[in-house]
Amino acid sequence: MSVIYRRAVRFEEVDAAGIAFFARFFNWCHEAMERFYDDVPDGYVGLITRRRVGFPAVHLTADWRSPLRYGDVANIETSVTRIGTTSATLRYVLTREADGVHVATIEHVTVATDLDTMTKRPLPDDCRALLERHLSPPA
Amino acid sequence: MSVIYRRAVRFEEVDAAGIAFFARFFNWCHEAMERFYDDVPDGYVGLITRRRVGFPAVHLTADWRSPLRYGDVANIETSVTRIGTTSATLRYVLTREADGVHVATIEHVTVATDLDTMTKRPLPDDCRALLERHLSPPA
Amino acid sequence: MSVIYRRAVRFEEVDAAGIAFFARFFNWCHEAMERFYDDVPDGYVGLITRRRVGFPAVHLTADWRSPLRYGDVANIETSVTRIGTTSATLRYVLTREADGVHVATIEHVTVATDLDTMTKRPLPDDCRALLERHLSPPA
Amino acid sequence: MSVIYRRAVRFEEVDAAGIAFFARFFNWCHEAMERFYDDVPDGYVGLITRRRVGFPAVHLTADWRSPLRYGDVANIETSVTRIGTTSATLRYVLTREADGVHVATIEHVTVATDLDTMTKRPLPDDCRALLERHLSPPA
Repeated sequence: MSVIYRRAVRFEEVDAAGIAFFARFFNWCHEAMERFYDDVPDGYVGLITRRRVGFPAVHLTADWRSPLRYGDVANIETSVTRIGTTSATLRYVLTREADGVHVATIEHVTVATDLDTMTKRPLPDDCRALLERHLSPPA
Repeated sequence: MSVIYRRAVRFEEVDAAGIAFFARFFNWCHEAMERFYDDVPDGYVGLITRRRVGFPAVHLTADWRSPLRYGDVANIETSVTRIGTTSATLRYVLTREADGVHVATIEHVTVATDLDTMTKRPLPDDCRALLERHLSPPA
Repeated sequence: MSVIYRRAVRFEEVDAAGIAFFARFFNWCHEAMERFYDDVPDGYVGLITRRRVGFPAVHLTADWRSPLRYGDVANIETSVTRIGTTSATLRYVLTREADGVHVATIEHVTVATDLDTMTKRPLPDDCRALLERHLSPPA
Repeated sequence: MSVIYRRAVRFEEVDAAGIAFFARFFNWCHEAMERFYDDVPDGYVGLITRRRVGFPAVHLTADWRSPLRYGDVANIETSVTRIGTTSATLRYVLTREADGVHVATIEHVTVATDLDTMTKRPLPDDCRALLERHLSPPA
């Protein structure tokens, strides 16, 4: 029921401590979310640019277990843990591809938003149907 | 007891929805943390490059209330909510400078880490003393 | 006649080779350009968001002489080398603050652009006057 | 003789003018270079982390013809225009996939560098052989 997004740590994504910078994990999760919504017509790009529906974050929790380094590949498993009227909660579990080690788990509460008025709105029907297909019980 | 870090949203920090990208908030909080540690000798740069002590994130929570746009300035108020043997929890409260609106609150649990072995270590004494000077009760 | 923008290399701006990532230099030069235009009313933010005038790059050359590392501070000296009807060429000379070493020189040809139509337009009068005050002969 | 790297403009790679930020093009070209060197054993990651050979930029020119927006895909065609004893010049031609429009051309002079001493060194034999297989006459 989950969707896997495979993402290599890039050359410029490390920090002066030599590990992938913590804020980068949220870029990757957003990429995983875009990949997830690519299963609605026109995908995430269509949502943003044509339908003018976005999914800003309102709440987020992250737990890190292991660092990632340049050359590592993360497998990001995206699932859905809660669906509300306007909100959708996505969970991303990141594992290091080379050895299967658990790297991080991130929960991301998003709210469907009309990008022209910047006010919340009900989840579009096709997004809701997609979310429901990937709904998992909380970990 | 808190430290203020003033940060303008930059031209390239918005996303295709026209607001500051959510992952950028963590870059800014890290900058605020670096600013915070600048009160130890050699500052954060000295910690990382000479003393080889880092503060990777192990846990993080974020709540957003209002978006930021290009041209907005965030006032990031950094305080300390918990000090352990090896860990330090920082809280960042972001307000929009123009109108004082509450933008986001982020809690960031970090663990003092020996960057050569990548294992946790006790908080350095000067860091602990600095953290204690800014310790606030949880919100 | 030049404007100095002081910029520390940040924790996450290095790459896996341990030096400031080459693309970051262009972020910094853009920051220096924004600082430069802050001397027109409303500054660069006003140009972009209210007046809807931008300065996309059409040509750029860069020469690097020395790397920068985390903890280094760059002094970016911005001057103007050519002013056309619609175009302005800025030159950025980066030196490392600690020892004055020449780090890089970047020339950046920009074209005043109506952001609503994405077509070029004459330089606004106040921008032209500002550019002329900082015009330097080519190096 | 050239290598194609396909790259979608990401959600957070636009700027407040609504187009892909100019510095991002250099991130993408570096990704294309990494892809190019993936044809040597261990690829670019092996060069950096195990063999300790990097390719810092010493000179760069860029020309832009058309903007890219969120949702656009760039086809980046990488070729080699000059091979020296220690240096390699790569050329990247970016076209917009949807309509084949020429977006930008970037030339990137890199110098093989011993990352432990940060001094230049001869091109490794396998890198040189790879470069020679993709050598094109200058445009």
